[in-house]
Amino acid sequence: MKFIKKLTNRLDTLNSHVCVGLDSRYDRIPEFIKKGKTVSEAIFSFNKELIAATHHVAVAYKTTLTFYNAFGDEGREGLRKTNHYLKANYPEIPLLADYKTSDMGESAKMMKKDIFDGLLFDCIMMTPWFGEDTIKEFLKDDACGVAIYVHDTNPTASEFQDIELKDGRRLYEAVAEKVAKSWNNNGNIFVEAGATYPTQLQRTREIVGEDMVILTVGIGPQGGDIKNLRGLFGKNGKRLLVNGSRSIIFAGEGKKDYFQGVKDAAEQFRQDLSAIAELAI
Amino acid sequence: MKFIKKLTNRLDTLNSHVCVGLDSRYDRIPEFIKKGKTVSEAIFSFNKELIAATHHVAVAYKTTLTFYNAFGDEGREGLRKTNHYLKANYPEIPLLADYKTSDMGESAKMMKKDIFDGLLFDCIMMTPWFGEDTIKEFLKDDACGVAIYVHDTNPTASEFQDIELKDGRRLYEAVAEKVAKSWNNNGNIFVEAGATYPTQLQRTREIVGEDMVILTVGIGPQGGDIKNLRGLFGKNGKRLLVNGSRSIIFAGEGKKDYFQGVKDAAEQFRQDLSAIAELAI
Repeated sequence: MKFIKKLTNRLDTLNSHVCVGLDSRYDRIPEFIKKGKTVSEAIFSFNKELIAATHHVAVAYKTTLTFYNAFGDEGREGLRKTNHYLKANYPEIPLLADYKTSDMGESAKMMKKDIFDGLLFDCIMMTPWFGEDTIKEFLKDDACGVAIYVHDTNPTASEFQDIELKDGRRLYEAVAEKVAKSWNNNGNIFVEAGATYPTQLQRTREIVGEDMVILTVGIGPQGGDIKNLRGLFGKNGKRLLVNGSRSIIFAGEGKKDYFQGVKDAAEQFRQDLSAIAELAI
Repeated sequence: MKFIKKLTNRLDTLNSHVCVGLDSRYDRIPEFIKKGKTVSEAIFSFNKELIAATHHVAVAYKTTLTFYNAFGDEGREGLRKTNHYLKANYPEIPLLADYKTSDMGESAKMMKKDIFDGLLFDCIMMTPWFGEDTIKEFLKDDACGVAIYVHDTNPTASEFQDIELKDGRRLYEAVAEKVAKSWNNNGNIFVEAGATYPTQLQRTREIVGEDMVILTVGIGPQGGDIKNLRGLFGKNGKRLLVNGSRSIIFAGEGKKDYFQGVKDAAEQFRQDLSAIAELAI
């Protein structure tokens, strides 16, 4: 199945906009899970519980690879087991590799082997720095999705992304236009824009149009305000995917029932997002 | 020791400009090495032979991580063994992680753990897309180097890197200026600019000055002409590092003695580069 079909099917049918960030760094996994387990077992066990608590509201799972790589082969083993488990049990949920990378040619072929064939992701998130060569290798295959970081959430994202071009556009606008108008040959590409820069997020929606999926991140701990998402949900209010990582997966900290806390946080996030999505512009 | 001191010591004393790209993709390792070995053993064995054949001309080793990640845990195990071997036997040679990535905050801390603590690299190569947040975490530690991709070698590198800004500069010039004038607080940062865009490489040298190390790639198989490096070697002709990957490590293919072929190619590359370095501008 085409990646984008898988993603939009899920957005169209689930009545949710939640992307769950499975950033399960081992050092923050609760002790009662870790006890008596290897690192990879603990990660896998934690993730299975997170999935049980969130799969009914998760349009997609997004995984920041560095959080697993940091724990070496054990970390990657935990990630691999998690993705195999997801494919076996929830094949309808797209898996996004938050990799913040960019590669081309032979290296891109190797990356495809690692991320899609080895780790079973459905989509890779990439910086646009090296241009179209970055995405070609992935988009040849209909089942592979690519998300381009158009404007990120971090304090210095503006340094280059907001730089003014000769023709009056900002750089992120040029990137968004390139994605929407030149790179989107088979529909398997979409964009990421952070909620901590609401003006740029809004402008990104204007540029890519109502049909393209936007993934936004940075609501909550990073300072993005959910109210800023009003009017940005795209066609039928179903083309915005909103990530929650720490605010969901660690929501059980200090609670009597850890994973009930996770479930409550995910459901509350869904509800809050649906309320905003239903508001007129 | 400060990373940059380690790198410039080596450039000052070795009488070489060669950076050897240890891009030892398993599928291209010769059969006589692979025979009877696991993937990680074959990679490690191949790399040890490459190191024996090149360490006397290698200012640094640069490793494209995707070529190892593509072969899963075995690939990374081969890489880890290689870097441990290099640290034990050739601690004076800097190890560069060609990662084409960019991360910040907690993810950057995790990446540091993976790349510097786990895999023993001395330097990480990063895209500038997310701004200064990308490099902060690494440059806090004096022993960590960062190289920023200012202008790459690939055909579509121009798409964004050469885009014209309101103030008349090109984007890659703005990045090079940012690196040289704002980000270089403790001297542990340098730049990468590809030899397939000679004008931009020359302009990069003008911007960063004679003292900063430039790493250039793309000579040979990718189409960069060694003659274009004339005049770009920096202070005392010792601030340019020129990468050779495939043209060195696979130079033994079809030869009677594979690693003699590798050694010959590395030494020829050193000689060719030295001849250009010694020419007046």
